[in-house]
Amino acid sequence: MSFINNWLRSDIQAINAYHVPPAGAMIKLDAMESPFALSDELTTQYLAHLADSELNRYPNPSADELNQTLRALMGIPGEFGVLLGNGSDELIQLLALACKANDTILSVEPSFVMYDLIAKFTRLNYQGVALTQDYQLDAERMLQAISEYKPKLIFIAYPNNPTGNSFDRADIERIISATDAMVVLDEAYYAYADDSFLNDISKYPNLVVLRTVSKIGFAGLRLGLLIGAKTTTEQLDKLRLPYNINTLTQVSGNFLLKEKAQIEKNAAIIIQQRQQLSDELKQITGLLVYASQANFILFKAPKAQALFDYLKVHNVLIKNLSNAPKLTDCLRVTVGDEDQNQQFLKIVNRFYK
Amino acid sequence: MSFINNWLRSDIQAINAYHVPPAGAMIKLDAMESPFALSDELTTQYLAHLADSELNRYPNPSADELNQTLRALMGIPGEFGVLLGNGSDELIQLLALACKANDTILSVEPSFVMYDLIAKFTRLNYQGVALTQDYQLDAERMLQAISEYKPKLIFIAYPNNPTGNSFDRADIERIISATDAMVVLDEAYYAYADDSFLNDISKYPNLVVLRTVSKIGFAGLRLGLLIGAKTTTEQLDKLRLPYNINTLTQVSGNFLLKEKAQIEKNAAIIIQQRQQLSDELKQITGLLVYASQANFILFKAPKAQALFDYLKVHNVLIKNLSNAPKLTDCLRVTVGDEDQNQQFLKIVNRFYK
Repeated sequence: MSFINNWLRSDIQAINAYHVPPAGAMIKLDAMESPFALSDELTTQYLAHLADSELNRYPNPSADELNQTLRALMGIPGEFGVLLGNGSDELIQLLALACKANDTILSVEPSFVMYDLIAKFTRLNYQGVALTQDYQLDAERMLQAISEYKPKLIFIAYPNNPTGNSFDRADIERIISATDAMVVLDEAYYAYADDSFLNDISKYPNLVVLRTVSKIGFAGLRLGLLIGAKTTTEQLDKLRLPYNINTLTQVSGNFLLKEKAQIEKNAAIIIQQRQQLSDELKQITGLLVYASQANFILFKAPKAQALFDYLKVHNVLIKNLSNAPKLTDCLRVTVGDEDQNQQFLKIVNRFYK
Repeated sequence: MSFINNWLRSDIQAINAYHVPPAGAMIKLDAMESPFALSDELTTQYLAHLADSELNRYPNPSADELNQTLRALMGIPGEFGVLLGNGSDELIQLLALACKANDTILSVEPSFVMYDLIAKFTRLNYQGVALTQDYQLDAERMLQAISEYKPKLIFIAYPNNPTGNSFDRADIERIISATDAMVVLDEAYYAYADDSFLNDISKYPNLVVLRTVSKIGFAGLRLGLLIGAKTTTEQLDKLRLPYNINTLTQVSGNFLLKEKAQIEKNAAIIIQQRQQLSDELKQITGLLVYASQANFILFKAPKAQALFDYLKVHNVLIKNLSNAPKLTDCLRVTVGDEDQNQQFLKIVNRFYK
């Protein structure tokens, strides 16, 4: 028995380390990444821009310019505050740390697994309310859970991962109005969605919105943001670790995230590809294809595990959710570029022939 | 009254946001940064190396190559495990999250303020044991505090910040042997010290060592590491947020931190400059200059606040600790390059003339 087995709390020891399978040279449609690399021309300019960063100095502690860059990219009103994190994950953890001992985090299931996991990391209670059979928000059960568990934080991914749909706006508004909790709308996939709660922040003091640049071409930066009332972000900022956004992220973001037109053009391509991919998947007999507002598509497939394995053998990596609770027979494919999507479809079609 | 004032726990609201003063074009001797920038030649090679990073993809989740690079740079034995964080701060927080509710963190005072602050963030108890009058470890009081508070974690900075000295090794060994706590030797300043506990990890299962690249020329990377028994790091890794080390940090570290000879040469210059700076400060009547094993020097100065202000007016920024507990009249100056140190000395001499 090692020292650590006596020392570390058992609920953490019981966690199975999250294993990310190496993708090697596969077509990677498993992680909601953008398929679009930087152009050579942009790369050249970008590197010239990076040359001036003083790596021997600490970063700008408040990342002021990056804050402005993100505001311009995402159209965030000047009256709101913005807090930056190393991915949304750091901000989810910061929100959980803001809670008191024994507080409860509420979310829906299935949804982003980090809400539950970070509740565990931060020693909070977690309650997950099941979505309906077709992955819609069960507003009545949510309202019941709010009155029963009195959550301090409610996470709603909008659009939801891994289901891809956006819940009913009126249901979410009812929830926000019914609770004293801080309601966190996680808009990681905002660039591919028709609707957003960003502008509702001025209406609901208990609403904050999370976003990230991971799904719009910059997963390698690990940059997330929390948007809320300025009074809210100013207080939450006290929990931010000093200099959390490193110099390279700041300098890179300040160059790359100013390419708003290109980023929006790439998102439009993905939305168009999502439509095409969805249409073609629906033509395959036996597949149940769920509507998506994100850059991925969830579908229920006969022999899901075998299809996943078959794709992998043929060099296409998607996400196998077929053994996850409430996701029996489900697979999730990230929308890639046209070539990738067509290759994926070809293999799926061949599998079912 | 805003929503957040009702929602957020009051101990966090009571924190005064840590304000980092803008340094502008001043000679920056306040933050233990290395004065040495990358050479133009190295910068050119570095940027060429960065050109290949795929920013649209998530980083390598376990940062395997960077792990190896740091092992080679710091001579970390292969039998030990290494865990990477965004600065040591993220790792200190991870250790605190590993604790149970109501656990206690023990450290000494004065020391690095984040131990206390992160205990607060993570809702743990914190106990600080006063150093002796001349900033040595008070071993008897530490042992007494261990038996009284039964801490879960003990942080000892070695060398200590902001005092600059390394505590007595035998005292630290007694503490490690006397406790069931995990003892964290924070060796942020290892590159400037004569001694290290790195190799003691194999002797003491409850010992882990923290390091960072911030003080050896790469504060902008925000890269820290925790070194411990492999059984320990494997379990703690379960608390690490996914993909916490971004692509840019990994790719940059894998180029820049391989320049071991240059990094060690720069450290040797700082050690030599520290000696010279210390000698010259001691010649100024009225100054009490403390011995340093780090890249900064603590000194007690008559009219400390006025000296600090005078330096600032003359474009030299150091750290004013004169109002901090147990640091009355104390200032802390980072060892810069020869020019910077001489300019600092000239102004101090002029002030006291």
